[in-house]
Amino acid sequence: MAERPTEPAPLLSWWGWGDPAEVPELPEAVTELLRGALGVTRAPAPRPALAELSPPPPRIADGAAARLAEVVGAEHARADAATRIRHTRGKSTPDLLALRAGDASAAPDLVVFPATHDEVLRTLAICAEARVAAVPFGGGTSVVGGLAPPDAGVYAGLVAIDLRRMDALLELDEVSRLAVLEPGLRGPQAEALLGAHGYTIGHFPQSFEYASLGGFAAARSSGQASAGYGRFDELALGLRVATPAGTVNVGRAPRSAAGPDLRQLFLGSEGALGVITALTVQVHPSPAQRSYEGWRFPDFATGTAGLRALAQDGPRPTVLRLSDEAETALNLARPSELGRAGAGGGGGAGGALAIVGFEGSVARVARDQVEASAVLREHGGAPEPEAGDHWAGDRFRGPYLRDALLDHGVLVETLETVAFWSKLDGLYAAVGSALRSELERRGTPPVILCHVSHVYPAGASLYFTVGCAAAADPIAQWRAAKAVASDAIIAAGGSISHHHGVGSDHRAWYGEELGALGAGVLRAVKAELDPVGVLNPGILIPGPAE
Amino acid sequence: MAERPTEPAPLLSWWGWGDPAEVPELPEAVTELLRGALGVTRAPAPRPALAELSPPPPRIADGAAARLAEVVGAEHARADAATRIRHTRGKSTPDLLALRAGDASAAPDLVVFPATHDEVLRTLAICAEARVAAVPFGGGTSVVGGLAPPDAGVYAGLVAIDLRRMDALLELDEVSRLAVLEPGLRGPQAEALLGAHGYTIGHFPQSFEYASLGGFAAARSSGQASAGYGRFDELALGLRVATPAGTVNVGRAPRSAAGPDLRQLFLGSEGALGVITALTVQVHPSPAQRSYEGWRFPDFATGTAGLRALAQDGPRPTVLRLSDEAETALNLARPSELGRAGAGGGGGAGGALAIVGFEGSVARVARDQVEASAVLREHGGAPEPEAGDHWAGDRFRGPYLRDALLDHGVLVETLETVAFWSKLDGLYAAVGSALRSELERRGTPPVILCHVSHVYPAGASLYFTVGCAAAADPIAQWRAAKAVASDAIIAAGGSISHHHGVGSDHRAWYGEELGALGAGVLRAVKAELDPVGVLNPGILIPGPAE
Repeated sequence: MAERPTEPAPLLSWWGWGDPAEVPELPEAVTELLRGALGVTRAPAPRPALAELSPPPPRIADGAAARLAEVVGAEHARADAATRIRHTRGKSTPDLLALRAGDASAAPDLVVFPATHDEVLRTLAICAEARVAAVPFGGGTSVVGGLAPPDAGVYAGLVAIDLRRMDALLELDEVSRLAVLEPGLRGPQAEALLGAHGYTIGHFPQSFEYASLGGFAAARSSGQASAGYGRFDELALGLRVATPAGTVNVGRAPRSAAGPDLRQLFLGSEGALGVITALTVQVHPSPAQRSYEGWRFPDFATGTAGLRALAQDGPRPTVLRLSDEAETALNLARPSELGRAGAGGGGGAGGALAIVGFEGSVARVARDQVEASAVLREHGGAPEPEAGDHWAGDRFRGPYLRDALLDHGVLVETLETVAFWSKLDGLYAAVGSALRSELERRGTPPVILCHVSHVYPAGASLYFTVGCAAAADPIAQWRAAKAVASDAIIAAGGSISHHHGVGSDHRAWYGEELGALGAGVLRAVKAELDPVGVLNPGILIPGPAE
Repeated sequence: MAERPTEPAPLLSWWGWGDPAEVPELPEAVTELLRGALGVTRAPAPRPALAELSPPPPRIADGAAARLAEVVGAEHARADAATRIRHTRGKSTPDLLALRAGDASAAPDLVVFPATHDEVLRTLAICAEARVAAVPFGGGTSVVGGLAPPDAGVYAGLVAIDLRRMDALLELDEVSRLAVLEPGLRGPQAEALLGAHGYTIGHFPQSFEYASLGGFAAARSSGQASAGYGRFDELALGLRVATPAGTVNVGRAPRSAAGPDLRQLFLGSEGALGVITALTVQVHPSPAQRSYEGWRFPDFATGTAGLRALAQDGPRPTVLRLSDEAETALNLARPSELGRAGAGGGGGAGGALAIVGFEGSVARVARDQVEASAVLREHGGAPEPEAGDHWAGDRFRGPYLRDALLDHGVLVETLETVAFWSKLDGLYAAVGSALRSELERRGTPPVILCHVSHVYPAGASLYFTVGCAAAADPIAQWRAAKAVASDAIIAAGGSISHHHGVGSDHRAWYGEELGALGAGVLRAVKAELDPVGVLNPGILIPGPAE
């Protein structure tokens, strides 16, 4: 079987998120509020036009470029400016700020679109031989600098390997509930192909509409329904990986005691160890029922205890998240409270809003709702009508709001972390406080929102959204804030990423997590699979000196 | 905190399992049946006496031995024959046959008992410097040749690093439900320490009474209650590992997207990559209720479908296993049916017996029992009174029966595998058929029993027990049978081990699973952590030529 999407992968805005037509117009009341609350003084900046940007002259030697074109077919090897710019950087705020400022210096020299595993293998072999750096490119939605290798400058050029042509559903094993899928499929494409057979993966990260399956695996993505369906690294039971040294297949069984689990080396490998060319993914019957409830707690701490009770003793909802007081105020459209609420900033009158979602059979959803309600009430929760549906309707919209705010001179960015439950309070306070003091010191006091986005029996993730007036150099401004936040995460015992990944932005802190010997292990693995070091140089893997 | 067991770790029989006093006397009716059904003709062999065995002369240079004794203290470095023999090999049937035959050639030259992480680090550094092979030794219960490194002969001696003195509960985080435990703790010791605080790990493999926590992690153990509590590799969220190259700490959070999961390299590393010196383990409140039910299905295939329904759609019991017709006949004491039932041998009138266990709160157990009963009845199951309690009472007794049968000239051994559901029928038939034809060809037709021992949404494990008359060279007889079974496992798409591990016995087939490049990755990791290659040489990691 080889079923393919009827619609091609959608085009992703090169200067922002998704479809530019979806970026909302901010009402005058909001922009005035921004001026008041954040002290935004800059006039809205116009968005750039594609033709205004000039990527640098291509550096790949003609011979190597010709050989690459031969592998994928001339029409699938493109070096035009528009294609190169559309493969430049990812979707972090610094990425967008750079492109909005006309900086296309990180553009790949060539973009190839292989159609098969064998084409990927041959592409990598040519890159290794010609010392051309190679960036595997899925949906292009990295928010941690995963698509602009900082060390690529020493190579004889940079190729982006766009996997969109590898978009088939190759197998569906209904007995084991496993689908073999190609990496270029976007979230909705994969869901449509599987939905026609009555199945879902159940993986819905905020980037769902544009991100690819290969990216989900390579970045250890976690979807909004992770409490019910699991993280993508739990769902991707098998991987086929093309590397400069050949092919690796991992994942022969649901679980095994046959040695270390090498699948776990490629999950989270972010294109630095190989290119994922097929995934065996656990699928689930499409749920008959979906129901999302809002629950309001007196404050974030109380709500966190309620979520922990469900995560540890059940029933486990499919979706489970909790906004702090500041984010709740925004969600409930009480922006007047934003200034005094939130991470490290005290409570808000609106309390803390949780979203508790259930998917499954009608009977199971009904039963779990009743049981979970009892637990949530015990922990001080009260139903908040319509908040669940409101969340579900807007669940993929956040990035568009960022585009609108960037237009108006507001710096907005997110970061996330994860820790064991006993460290969560300290982590929440430390990250909020670090961000607040750094941005206040720079004269741009921020609004900081936070939510618990994913829960486990042993801990949970925290997802922060930061907004402040953009300074003259907003990239430097954010890098400084991000650095103190990352230091705070490590010091408070958190991991530098729960689901965004490492990329280049987190590499130094990831090195601290790994320790010198752990980093040495990763470098040894890389040297075995990619001896020349052409795959995403400078992404993920800490250098010996870091 | 550093709470330690009040009782020392129990002594494990060096020629068999556990406490020799527990080995049952076989009734005359059974031994006669063995003669009839299996054609056993050999007279019962006497068990050997410890004093009859002579380990080879110690090979470690005096200087290195003295330095090792200095690290751990002279009283904790022992080279007497009894100590050496008690650290010789593991508990596979070939291991026991060798020791029963007086073969102590695999004995370590020295046994050290370090008390701290630092002592382990220093021990490994001395071993690397002196080129002395080192075997980390937990409970000594390996059944895959994990404790007698076949390649140790080229080294300047062999040291067993017995971790029994590292037996503390170091921390208990009741908010995150995490315990930090030392690796030398035996299963019951850890349960007693945690039980005093109201917690359980919930990990009860058949080796539970003697195996150690470090071994559970190093061999990716899976307990009988894995459906409810998870496998040990899911429970061990953090590890501290001592290697010849230094210390690695893995597991900072319940889950993370910070790169590849290096924890998964040390889980299943079987002492070949380092010595686990502390574990952070997920614990659960001690269940208020435990209930084990028996369910009888018309046949193994029907029962398997019932288990799959529970594994995929719930409710998920805590314990879930299913014997095939032959094993059911034995469990229900209908040995007359043994000859004609079982793997590849057709059905038995007793059907297929499942054990379905529930642990948790009284209310949850009651509810899940009702719901699971409905699913099991839908799949043709009917309650089998008392079978659940019978199973629970005997759950750790299997290995003693093997000792009694070995006494009587019966070769008994087990092997296990795991695959996706869609491959399970073929795997079951192929392994049974391979074992049967090889042992029939050798003139010792076997009885083959099998059960599904662990279930997952995507697949399940199969656990085979094989019995036949012991030939003149029973080790060669079993190696031949095991080889064809292992070939059949790989050919049928199974993994070479679900929970026993790789050791030296499975290494060649593990190499087939890994592929050349995967094996190269493992060797690269090993070279980074253990550059001299002193850790368990010849265990786990396939050589370049294999």
